Amino acid sequence: MEQNIFHLQYAIDTFYFLVCGALVMWMAAGFAMLEAGLVRSKNTTEILTKNIALFAISCVMYLACGYAIMYDGGIFLSGIESVDVDATLKEFSAREDGIAGGAIYSSASDFFFQVVFVATAMSIVSGAVAERMKLWTFLAFAVVMTGVIYPMEGAWTWNGADVFGLYNLGDLGFSDFAGSGIVHMAGAAAALAGVLLLGPREGKYGKDGRVNAFPGANMPLATLGTFILWMGWFGFNGGSVLKLGDVANANSVAMVFLNTNAAAAGGAISALLLSAVLFKKADLTMALNGALAGLVAITAEPSTPTALQATLFGAAGGILVVLSIIGLDKLKIDDPVGAISVHGVVGLLGLLLVPLTNTGVSFTGQLAGAATIFGWVFVTSGIVWFVLSKTVGLRVTKEQEYEGVDRSECGIEAYPEFVKS
Amino acid sequence: MEQNIFHLQYAIDTFYFLVCGALVMWMAAGFAMLEAGLVRSKNTTEILTKNIALFAISCVMYLACGYAIMYDGGIFLSGIESVDVDATLKEFSAREDGIAGGAIYSSASDFFFQVVFVATAMSIVSGAVAERMKLWTFLAFAVVMTGVIYPMEGAWTWNGADVFGLYNLGDLGFSDFAGSGIVHMAGAAAALAGVLLLGPREGKYGKDGRVNAFPGANMPLATLGTFILWMGWFGFNGGSVLKLGDVANANSVAMVFLNTNAAAAGGAISALLLSAVLFKKADLTMALNGALAGLVAITAEPSTPTALQATLFGAAGGILVVLSIIGLDKLKIDDPVGAISVHGVVGLLGLLLVPLTNTGVSFTGQLAGAATIFGWVFVTSGIVWFVLSKTVGLRVTKEQEYEGVDRSECGIEAYPEFVKS
Amino acid sequence: MEQNIFHLQYAIDTFYFLVCGALVMWMAAGFAMLEAGLVRSKNTTEILTKNIALFAISCVMYLACGYAIMYDGGIFLSGIESVDVDATLKEFSAREDGIAGGAIYSSASDFFFQVVFVATAMSIVSGAVAERMKLWTFLAFAVVMTGVIYPMEGAWTWNGADVFGLYNLGDLGFSDFAGSGIVHMAGAAAALAGVLLLGPREGKYGKDGRVNAFPGANMPLATLGTFILWMGWFGFNGGSVLKLGDVANANSVAMVFLNTNAAAAGGAISALLLSAVLFKKADLTMALNGALAGLVAITAEPSTPTALQATLFGAAGGILVVLSIIGLDKLKIDDPVGAISVHGVVGLLGLLLVPLTNTGVSFTGQLAGAATIFGWVFVTSGIVWFVLSKTVGLRVTKEQEYEGVDRSECGIEAYPEFVKS
Repeated sequence: MEQNIFHLQYAIDTFYFLVCGALVMWMAAGFAMLEAGLVRSKNTTEILTKNIALFAISCVMYLACGYAIMYDGGIFLSGIESVDVDATLKEFSAREDGIAGGAIYSSASDFFFQVVFVATAMSIVSGAVAERMKLWTFLAFAVVMTGVIYPMEGAWTWNGADVFGLYNLGDLGFSDFAGSGIVHMAGAAAALAGVLLLGPREGKYGKDGRVNAFPGANMPLATLGTFILWMGWFGFNGGSVLKLGDVANANSVAMVFLNTNAAAAGGAISALLLSAVLFKKADLTMALNGALAGLVAITAEPSTPTALQATLFGAAGGILVVLSIIGLDKLKIDDPVGAISVHGVVGLLGLLLVPLTNTGVSFTGQLAGAATIFGWVFVTSGIVWFVLSKTVGLRVTKEQEYEGVDRSECGIEAYPEFVKS
Repeated sequence: MEQNIFHLQYAIDTFYFLVCGALVMWMAAGFAMLEAGLVRSKNTTEILTKNIALFAISCVMYLACGYAIMYDGGIFLSGIESVDVDATLKEFSAREDGIAGGAIYSSASDFFFQVVFVATAMSIVSGAVAERMKLWTFLAFAVVMTGVIYPMEGAWTWNGADVFGLYNLGDLGFSDFAGSGIVHMAGAAAALAGVLLLGPREGKYGKDGRVNAFPGANMPLATLGTFILWMGWFGFNGGSVLKLGDVANANSVAMVFLNTNAAAAGGAISALLLSAVLFKKADLTMALNGALAGLVAITAEPSTPTALQATLFGAAGGILVVLSIIGLDKLKIDDPVGAISVHGVVGLLGLLLVPLTNTGVSFTGQLAGAATIFGWVFVTSGIVWFVLSKTVGLRVTKEQEYEGVDRSECGIEAYPEFVKS
Repeated sequence: MEQNIFHLQYAIDTFYFLVCGALVMWMAAGFAMLEAGLVRSKNTTEILTKNIALFAISCVMYLACGYAIMYDGGIFLSGIESVDVDATLKEFSAREDGIAGGAIYSSASDFFFQVVFVATAMSIVSGAVAERMKLWTFLAFAVVMTGVIYPMEGAWTWNGADVFGLYNLGDLGFSDFAGSGIVHMAGAAAALAGVLLLGPREGKYGKDGRVNAFPGANMPLATLGTFILWMGWFGFNGGSVLKLGDVANANSVAMVFLNTNAAAAGGAISALLLSAVLFKKADLTMALNGALAGLVAITAEPSTPTALQATLFGAAGGILVVLSIIGLDKLKIDDPVGAISVHGVVGLLGLLLVPLTNTGVSFTGQLAGAATIFGWVFVTSGIVWFVLSKTVGLRVTKEQEYEGVDRSECGIEAYPEFVKS
């Protein structure tokens, strides 16, 4: 009897992880569609290729070494887990509070859930360096980012390891529930380092200080990508509760779903309104980035805010992302899809909002964590980008950029029959 | 021990709600893609903006007041539920039949599931008024529709409140399992009121009685949208059983999935065949609308029909939607995506089919419910549209309509590189 | 108490089936988008119509007779299952090992899961015969394929029936976990028979042995389709464990998710690398087909390989699919989307890989199974295609093919505003 309850408990927590993981995997499609919609048609095949390849590389590298670095455990060589049911049951029974205790679930489900986070971090990079970076250079970076750079900071945060044996972020009061900093700001830090070395697209910034708009080729795709990300985020944040199977955790998962949705809604509305004020038009791309910013803003702590707070946090993200996109253009930091603003600037906001609703978290800790993550990722990424720039090179030729990287890198046009020559 | 079972029971019913809710949220993407595919390219950015904004507005308004109006409860100010596990367990234990009793689950999960229904109702409107309505007027309507109009009729039906203290639809034998009337026909009623005040698109109806076809710009998007809606409908109908965690309810949820799928299949086939007979061509848009009509037709009662009945009910919806689309054009009621036919006309059919398989439901009750829902939504929507028409105005100028609302409302073209000038 | 556990067990296994089934249904959208992206714009509406119609036909035919043929049971006439809870509970109690015993779940959920597999098999055919086959001929074939041909071989494999009373594949050591052969190779066999009778597209193969590329019209759609299929495959393979609700099965489901993902990643990378070597370009379509090939390769046994093995098996699939696509073109077997290579050639590979990690399976058995499935489907499909060719005809006229089948078959252009005339 008791045994049967433990079986069910184990099964439901495992299934919850798998469903959430599948939703996060789906975010890879969201990034692909968002980025494909926001670049020009001549660079679309390449960004699609980057997105499918980076997801595949993330999965292989995290299997090969990333997971082991992050969680002190390897899974690459192990097959279907030899189930020691008795030992598992014993572990359950040993807890006085029975089922309400910590999560016990398939380690394969944990890996599956974790691996799709790596890919998310990497997806953020691809958009920012779009339309001018060499494909294979980007993929080489992806190998290092997903195999080492991300897992290292992941170990310091979600696995509680000391940062180079010097200090412990958890002890400093740092908390990042689902990864506003660990995943999103980290991806943006890697992107920023790349963008600074890479420089802006040809013709983006005129000599007279003019910022030239390069309209995205396909708005329905960009919108679809945003909806996909919005949906996938329920898995991203909802799964980060790490356990479903008792009343308290089920409530927490439900509240996370509700707040994640509310924050996205708040971000979409505030960004749409601000863009209407600033540009006198209902700017769709700002509304989309606003929704994503709302999602990033709530990700560091989606379980403790009230629904009203979540909506307001999301709205703050939506405001900030519009201002950040305008500001980065002023600084001539060229990010074709706004990824650095959405994931980096708003990722930081997300971290700093946590202490407002979670009393166990300190502003100092959040700042220390943000500085650690950003510093580590920005510096190591910068080194990798620099090495790549001195070896294989970061950037396609001016001629290739003018013709579009689809032709030079992929040899396939995205829309061979549509585009006006 | 017993406590542990209750924990699991609570968790599984909560998770079921959240998964179904995420699927219904996904329908927002379906409506966006369907509508973006069926309008002309010059109006595509605007309809995408409407879709993302209306979803966000629905979420905020339902949080702010809609849920409270519909279910006498507020959730906007509450954070993560202070879990009174003991009280919950007591509630469970108090039931003699134990687990087989009514659903007990996280109230946040219930809200999450309910809120995505509001957005569905509102999504129906956006397609019908496409290509000629002012964006901000539409969004202003969305505020009232999702904050008040829908929640009022939702209270009379799913919450069993008396209609203005006069009569009770449940007492009259009314039943609408997942919302053929409460959600779909309600959305169509609001759309119809708007369309009648707005008038048809310029050039749609010739002076000689000729109906001019305005082909949709992107058939793959329209098809994708239909598949998304088909998938999301499993959550829409499946979640409406409201409980999963015992044999009887699990069987019911499974039968609902099966019947929902069968009805969509029946609708797609019958509409395709009828269009082939009428037009001598396999009309894709009719097949898509047929599938959706099949889904709407089964939504009022997907649990009691046999699979054969579900297929036939769906097929009836597919036939009806083709005839209705042709008929509305004859009446010069211009609905660019066929939303009034799919959701309104077939929504009514769905309500009237219920008594055939559910003996607890009466035709009289269904007619009373349909009249109540339609009357309330049509009249109140009409008032709101009328007030908007007299203040901010409903319609863009002829020149803006000719140029496309993307330019005037959003300032962004959907496909800047594709379209023949 | 005990009763309550059984209720939960039943509910969770049923829900698991339904979630996985919804994911497999979603694959129908994946095939539709993949194929719509890989054909030319003038044939896009028709392939979308084929995809929505074949899914609907599959559902109706499998309900009407397919399921009964395959599993000796009818479901068409039965409504919501009259729940004999007592009998179900008795069945549970009768097992000494209690919950760890075989799966007991809603038969409607089993049907729902099975029916979406039929549609997958049929979807494979539509891509291979694209751009030249008559629509109604194709749909007529779909009726026979989903109603009889697939269910017959399904009965011999997953239901363990003797092949025409002559031999039993299970006894010969045949195993195909989720259908590399039963679903994927079967679909490809039907496609191959059709393609051989149909012949290549006009102009595909020049007289001088030259293979002319007909670039797909919409790469983002093809990529989206691949991501959808990748996601849906978690349901396809994960659901094929057939039970979730105990530790051993939950572990198995989790490992299947992990391995399915790893194989797809391996396939995408190996195909991308090989295409870079062969063509000096990063060929997106090969990367997409590589990911799908990885998925097909692991489908015959995703539960026993280690993660490393799964990655390598997927990579082998990715290599094979590139070579096969090149090889089929040399043989002038014209398959516009590469379906025969992805699902047929790699499906066979998948079957032959099983004995490497599953000691209960023999090479002889796999060969016997592959021969049986291929022989049966190829021969019967060939007969059906032949009869159709002699009656309604397989192929549109040259003029219709030149103009595009959208105009002749559907009367609707897919992108009326985009295409250069």
